[in-house]
Amino acid sequence: MCDDPAIDKPAKLLTPGPITTTASVKKAMLKDWGSWDSDFSELTASLCCQLTDIANAGSSHVCVPVQGSGTFAVEATLGTLVGPEDKVLVLANGAYGQRIAAILSRLRRPFVLLDKGDYEPPRAEDVRAALAADPEITQVALVHCETSSGILNPLEEIAELVEREGRSLIIDAMSSFGAIPVDAQRIRFDALISSMNKCLEGVPGFAFALIRETVLQQAEGRAHSLSLDLYDQWRYLQRSGQWRYTPPTHVVAAALQAVKEHAEEGGVEGRLARYSRNRDLLVSGMRGLGFETLLDDNWLSPVIITFLSPADEHFVFARFYAAMKKRGFIIYPGKLTQAETFRLGVIGQLYSEDIKELLDAVSAALDEMNITLPNRVSNATQA
Amino acid sequence: MCDDPAIDKPAKLLTPGPITTTASVKKAMLKDWGSWDSDFSELTASLCCQLTDIANAGSSHVCVPVQGSGTFAVEATLGTLVGPEDKVLVLANGAYGQRIAAILSRLRRPFVLLDKGDYEPPRAEDVRAALAADPEITQVALVHCETSSGILNPLEEIAELVEREGRSLIIDAMSSFGAIPVDAQRIRFDALISSMNKCLEGVPGFAFALIRETVLQQAEGRAHSLSLDLYDQWRYLQRSGQWRYTPPTHVVAAALQAVKEHAEEGGVEGRLARYSRNRDLLVSGMRGLGFETLLDDNWLSPVIITFLSPADEHFVFARFYAAMKKRGFIIYPGKLTQAETFRLGVIGQLYSEDIKELLDAVSAALDEMNITLPNRVSNATQA
Repeated sequence: MCDDPAIDKPAKLLTPGPITTTASVKKAMLKDWGSWDSDFSELTASLCCQLTDIANAGSSHVCVPVQGSGTFAVEATLGTLVGPEDKVLVLANGAYGQRIAAILSRLRRPFVLLDKGDYEPPRAEDVRAALAADPEITQVALVHCETSSGILNPLEEIAELVEREGRSLIIDAMSSFGAIPVDAQRIRFDALISSMNKCLEGVPGFAFALIRETVLQQAEGRAHSLSLDLYDQWRYLQRSGQWRYTPPTHVVAAALQAVKEHAEEGGVEGRLARYSRNRDLLVSGMRGLGFETLLDDNWLSPVIITFLSPADEHFVFARFYAAMKKRGFIIYPGKLTQAETFRLGVIGQLYSEDIKELLDAVSAALDEMNITLPNRVSNATQA
Repeated sequence: MCDDPAIDKPAKLLTPGPITTTASVKKAMLKDWGSWDSDFSELTASLCCQLTDIANAGSSHVCVPVQGSGTFAVEATLGTLVGPEDKVLVLANGAYGQRIAAILSRLRRPFVLLDKGDYEPPRAEDVRAALAADPEITQVALVHCETSSGILNPLEEIAELVEREGRSLIIDAMSSFGAIPVDAQRIRFDALISSMNKCLEGVPGFAFALIRETVLQQAEGRAHSLSLDLYDQWRYLQRSGQWRYTPPTHVVAAALQAVKEHAEEGGVEGRLARYSRNRDLLVSGMRGLGFETLLDDNWLSPVIITFLSPADEHFVFARFYAAMKKRGFIIYPGKLTQAETFRLGVIGQLYSEDIKELLDAVSAALDEMNITLPNRVSNATQA
């Protein structure tokens, strides 16, 4: 006999995705679609058009969706764009930069790793030195928001340098796209990869890449995989309006609703404003409770924030997690090698009211665990 | 500006998947899940346990889910189980057998193709001869129900032969699992690949493989892809209870509801009975209207049936499709190289009443197109 899982009431997800979505996004999944039918092709076309528009990339790039998680799209993009004769400079300061290296390693594509450790940002100066040291480098891969630490890496200065040096840029914008502005006519990139279930507030099931059309046109037959061949996927979509293999139809319908709501909130600007408010409230509230952030303020993304676990012996992450879950919040563990940390996301359907409730829950959880942090400000959650 | 797609009222899907699902399966998607949370891990564990049980494979095989469509799971299974030193005998009689060959070709894994053309079934005798001719063959790959023609291939006789010859069997059971019985203790296979959005009546977004545990244990580091490495996926699931990369959480929740409803209908036996009734009603009704099936009765699957397009000059598939869609039915084009055909699926939420309505709609569509088929029985749809 298989166990019957208990299905609890919904909690708010303070994670870097999947995130809490609107009821209307979820309700968009209440219809079955024929994936071969023209109605569904129109849906896909509209979605791809809108995703390209969010990056102002319609005149230069095409949107290629791919089934699976964000990592599937990163692998598909690398496999399709990076040939055995290329060499990629991978800028890593966390798990997702490391994952790009792991993918290239598995695909046997040449790369050099510029590893800045747990959270130090790669700077234009680092990239300049690396490119000077190895003229064989053809592409640079950067994670925009590295959710391992929550750092927002300096995309603009790196993109500028890469363009000046005549190399090509591949951006993993998984947890930033939709909330951090990227204008393809100002920031030059050959590929930007993202997912629906982060700042675009859709549900998980596929991801996508915005790829410079002239670059993709050269990529026929290069991919290591049939399923993850974005050239084939693009050509098939172009020719037939259909995904090459069965798409997650319900998830795609939810995505269309999600981009509609993204526009209604004021697009990237509106979402950035709300997430920034969430972050500011959260950081000041948590500091008031005596917590410290891993990063200085200027590197804190409006996506996810890493807090140092208190030194207090009563602070055990699993207990804190359970105390928060009981109060309706799903928090996220840390992912650093050097320090004990935990993470709180501020993306998805979270508003100032939710952040205030979250801070009350953190305060109550600390009380339950018999912890008073030395730097706590009295009446911290009343701010 | 992007076009706004028209969203019509739901139609019945007469396709080989995605299929029409119950309202309750779709409603299971109305909750957001933390993919890292133990509640979701329990959901995954229960689902995998039940999928393994459906094949009576719990004592010998493990269930490894993978994000993406069925093709992703086929590629992942082949990439994980077939090494460069192996050689696969691919039995093809349609597009899905050809796709197995295309995957192996892309992965540069050795294979030989036994191509029976558009719809002739591969027989044990063919396989015996192929194995005798090439002793290097280590694995045999078979599509159980080849939806290109709708043929149900003779799995049992082939499995028996492959076992007797000491080779390993990989079954693409995409459109058969859940409705055609497969007992892992009677039919020996190393891998059986299927999808949730066919006879299990879930929604698309992931697929899975049931893999012999002792075989999977030997597969570390073999896969050509990071995302599609089923060894890594399995180990990670075992260790953490979590999917290795973000799962399509809502789709997984729908899958759990779908397997519950599968059990409530009487499992494989109950579903086979309903689908068989659908097929029998459909075939006799369509013959009454003057249509002919591509295949003889003994090869007609209770999944999807191919009909020959009438020779009548007024019969144009696109017009027939539109006439059927207007009446609430999404039909499916043919996929044969040699003959003009179309296909009607009988899986998903379809009952005798729906098939009767479908036959009325076909009759009305023929009238609309000014077609009277020569073999039409009078009062054909009144049966």
